[in-house]
Amino acid sequence: MEPVTELARHIEGVTLIDQHVHGCWLAAGDRARFENALNEANTEPLAEFDSGFDSQLGFAVRAHCAPVLGLPGHAAAEDYWERRSRHSEIELARLFLSSAGVGDWLVDTGVGSDVAGVAELEALSGNRAHEIVRLEEVAEQAAQAPGDYAATFGEILHRRAASAVGTKSVLAYRGGFDGDLTEPSAAEVARAASRWRDRGGVRLRDRVLLRFGLHQGLRLGLPLQLHVGFGDRDCDLYKANPLLLLDFLRRSGDTPIVLLHCYPYEREAGYLAQAFNNVYLDGGLSINHLGARGPAFIARLLEMAPFRKILYSSDGFGPAELHFLGTRLWRNGIHRVLRGFVDAGDWSEGDALRVVDLIARGNAARVYRLAAR
Amino acid sequence: MEPVTELARHIEGVTLIDQHVHGCWLAAGDRARFENALNEANTEPLAEFDSGFDSQLGFAVRAHCAPVLGLPGHAAAEDYWERRSRHSEIELARLFLSSAGVGDWLVDTGVGSDVAGVAELEALSGNRAHEIVRLEEVAEQAAQAPGDYAATFGEILHRRAASAVGTKSVLAYRGGFDGDLTEPSAAEVARAASRWRDRGGVRLRDRVLLRFGLHQGLRLGLPLQLHVGFGDRDCDLYKANPLLLLDFLRRSGDTPIVLLHCYPYEREAGYLAQAFNNVYLDGGLSINHLGARGPAFIARLLEMAPFRKILYSSDGFGPAELHFLGTRLWRNGIHRVLRGFVDAGDWSEGDALRVVDLIARGNAARVYRLAAR
Amino acid sequence: MEPVTELARHIEGVTLIDQHVHGCWLAAGDRARFENALNEANTEPLAEFDSGFDSQLGFAVRAHCAPVLGLPGHAAAEDYWERRSRHSEIELARLFLSSAGVGDWLVDTGVGSDVAGVAELEALSGNRAHEIVRLEEVAEQAAQAPGDYAATFGEILHRRAASAVGTKSVLAYRGGFDGDLTEPSAAEVARAASRWRDRGGVRLRDRVLLRFGLHQGLRLGLPLQLHVGFGDRDCDLYKANPLLLLDFLRRSGDTPIVLLHCYPYEREAGYLAQAFNNVYLDGGLSINHLGARGPAFIARLLEMAPFRKILYSSDGFGPAELHFLGTRLWRNGIHRVLRGFVDAGDWSEGDALRVVDLIARGNAARVYRLAAR
Repeated sequence: MEPVTELARHIEGVTLIDQHVHGCWLAAGDRARFENALNEANTEPLAEFDSGFDSQLGFAVRAHCAPVLGLPGHAAAEDYWERRSRHSEIELARLFLSSAGVGDWLVDTGVGSDVAGVAELEALSGNRAHEIVRLEEVAEQAAQAPGDYAATFGEILHRRAASAVGTKSVLAYRGGFDGDLTEPSAAEVARAASRWRDRGGVRLRDRVLLRFGLHQGLRLGLPLQLHVGFGDRDCDLYKANPLLLLDFLRRSGDTPIVLLHCYPYEREAGYLAQAFNNVYLDGGLSINHLGARGPAFIARLLEMAPFRKILYSSDGFGPAELHFLGTRLWRNGIHRVLRGFVDAGDWSEGDALRVVDLIARGNAARVYRLAAR
Repeated sequence: MEPVTELARHIEGVTLIDQHVHGCWLAAGDRARFENALNEANTEPLAEFDSGFDSQLGFAVRAHCAPVLGLPGHAAAEDYWERRSRHSEIELARLFLSSAGVGDWLVDTGVGSDVAGVAELEALSGNRAHEIVRLEEVAEQAAQAPGDYAATFGEILHRRAASAVGTKSVLAYRGGFDGDLTEPSAAEVARAASRWRDRGGVRLRDRVLLRFGLHQGLRLGLPLQLHVGFGDRDCDLYKANPLLLLDFLRRSGDTPIVLLHCYPYEREAGYLAQAFNNVYLDGGLSINHLGARGPAFIARLLEMAPFRKILYSSDGFGPAELHFLGTRLWRNGIHRVLRGFVDAGDWSEGDALRVVDLIARGNAARVYRLAAR
Repeated sequence: MEPVTELARHIEGVTLIDQHVHGCWLAAGDRARFENALNEANTEPLAEFDSGFDSQLGFAVRAHCAPVLGLPGHAAAEDYWERRSRHSEIELARLFLSSAGVGDWLVDTGVGSDVAGVAELEALSGNRAHEIVRLEEVAEQAAQAPGDYAATFGEILHRRAASAVGTKSVLAYRGGFDGDLTEPSAAEVARAASRWRDRGGVRLRDRVLLRFGLHQGLRLGLPLQLHVGFGDRDCDLYKANPLLLLDFLRRSGDTPIVLLHCYPYEREAGYLAQAFNNVYLDGGLSINHLGARGPAFIARLLEMAPFRKILYSSDGFGPAELHFLGTRLWRNGIHRVLRGFVDAGDWSEGDALRVVDLIARGNAARVYRLAAR
């Protein structure tokens, strides 16, 4: 048995900022809902022969979430589901959120009407929560409102941003990163908005308006999060390669841009974080889905990215397990990786302690200007 | 010396289904033939200064095949060749095939006229063998036959499929995955077939007819194997990225689609296996050529792919060493990887045992509907 | 404490050929210059909140270069800078170059007017140095000279090549690898040269003339180095994927082509080294910037690439630390990786010793026809 080092103790105890997360479920659901929530990429119900438990994420839930529910680690899937079913989603949320060791949740509210909002996450976790405003949602609100589209977009964005800490774009899901991402002219925006409103103004896919929203986000100056890579199959994964953002990034000025998830492009994202003073990355969502392979992924996040440019998030959505598991797997993974760097003589233990603090909370506190608690 | 665990014993003993393999040589050849067979990508003879032995595959042959021939592990290349030369290819086939611990061979018969066929593999190995029908070969047979191309293609395919367990396409070698992969109209097929027959009807590269064949394969409903990634340089490797199949997969229905080889796109392939109920992957060919790096590759296969979607194959072709070595390297690699997961506390030993069985044979038996022996 | 093995001793002692390097600084500079030199990708000054020391390269400098200056390993950034500042750049160059264990430096002289040239590197290091001629620099010299462009290019190239050992192209920085890379006609070259000269003839980006230069390099027959992958953000990294070179390589004949840096495309580059008798690769630049992650990268370089096709370089430029650190990290990394292969039973210790010699110097001596010392 290896002795507990200062590094291990420190990683176990550090309070994280989860810089990109969604709400957890509030209402009861069946086992199919739960198992499907363990698969991110598939947009259809899992096949009869399959089980959401038979994946790295499913194994990680059984290994690391079961003890939170009083079961032994690696409890059988059936036992896990049975035990989980004894609790309401509200109870599960209180349990898992408060076990996460997170001090601040930055909540993308742009998806899911049946999950906890910012205030609910705050109440359930006992921590602080802050909003991230989704630009495509602002666009959809502007399309439904009367008056000039661009002006209305600006008004809604500024109103919502007043109490928010950042913005987010899901351009990756609305056609991807390739092609022109420059700012469109006012006339182009007006024409495109008129066309879109005529078609109902729902689920924005118009490139002109997507570009308009992105540049409004840049101009606002709050950190702008971008979905990159891994997600569900509505996204063309090869068009979600962050290298396709190069021209956009070259003209993005000083607004912090945060590349989210990044799998399997985490090395490309790390390169961009080195190449641009305003580019950051995290490995949220991916770390949960990689389970036992999380350490290998976390190690790749630590290649070309400067250490002041790496953030933590869980991207939890739905089962409250995910909000907790993100922190558990990150703590396990960063320990394994940094322990290896120290043991090899490449880093000092002090280096490792400092980088843990930067990724866990220091970088996020700086980028999002979060007050110390 | 670490104790032999149940996991190690189980992996050593499990009987595999090799779900994609070709014939082994039957007739004698010189050392140049052998060394060139240790290089997959090069289509020209190896340079004077080079040796097929000086590669991961070459080192693996010396490490793991030499003992099968009664030599010490890591025997010198010269000694290995000398010892191998004492045997006929038939003797080598009997030796290596029967040492592989494989119960069923699924044989792609679409390449090589001087290698063992299905019946010969059965006889030489003492195991069962089943045919995989190559769609482009069916096309070439239809082009040579009289009558309506589409009808003839369908007749040949159904006749051959009656005794086969799957189909295979080498679209990756015939222009790659990018571009339209929808089903062409009957008129388009007739026109394209007429043009191709006028040109002699050999080595199909016509996109209309390739698309036609793919969709006939889908409609047949047997598992459809696709060459993905690593192969020889006739393939444009960047057009063999499986993410380019996204639109095709979105319309592929329920027919199982098996992504073969996958290097260096194994993480992308794993993502697709998560995204589509009907998508599977293996790491055949790649594992042999990666030798000592096999464990790292096998670990990446175990990232996003659900565990009921991963298969084993060797893709052995030519030297019978490859049919054996695939199993040796897979056993070594999966043990290393799963042992690590268990030791880290992320998986239980029971989890590992069960996933071994799924990949070794359970998934393949289910997908190809192979009767238990 | 593990015993020192023959492999460890051999790796520590082997004299390297650094097959791609630039000059080190000769004149004093401030801390900002030094810290910016620890970031490759960014073309702007590092942000106020950032530090070049807070990266894998920065940590590696503190870990491995500090002892060369008489400091303990992992010295604080402030202490490192203070100690470094006590020396002139000339003194630092003498110290770090002579500590590198390099016998031959192959110097790309096409960048930087304020760094050491071939003769200076020879004098400062006490080793041999040889020139690599940059084809785009030859083009720019030809554009400034009177007379027929193509003839002048040829004259300059042959004159400079008489005392050089290879050529280099930075096509990756001048539009990337995608698109037509065939040889242009004489008429096309003349027209393009005329247009370019009219525009001043600086910083070549004209595709016709870039292609012309490449094919002149091929025809010359000296090894032709190509920047691949990782570099600064002027390069569109997704257009620096070496797979886009496939058509060019298929027609490149016998001239050795050396793919440099390769991150994050080192697996694709390894594939090309297997696919073409005349293709080689190295991991220069990347190994320095990866620091503690160097072993993982070196392991990937050892996947599909035949062992007679892998070379060593540092790509050092600016701080003399980089010329030394490349060798330190390569020795550490290759030892870690090969030790693992041997311990796993996949390679013999003799295999490892031989591959060390091939990568360290044997392959480079053969390719560049360097006389034994």
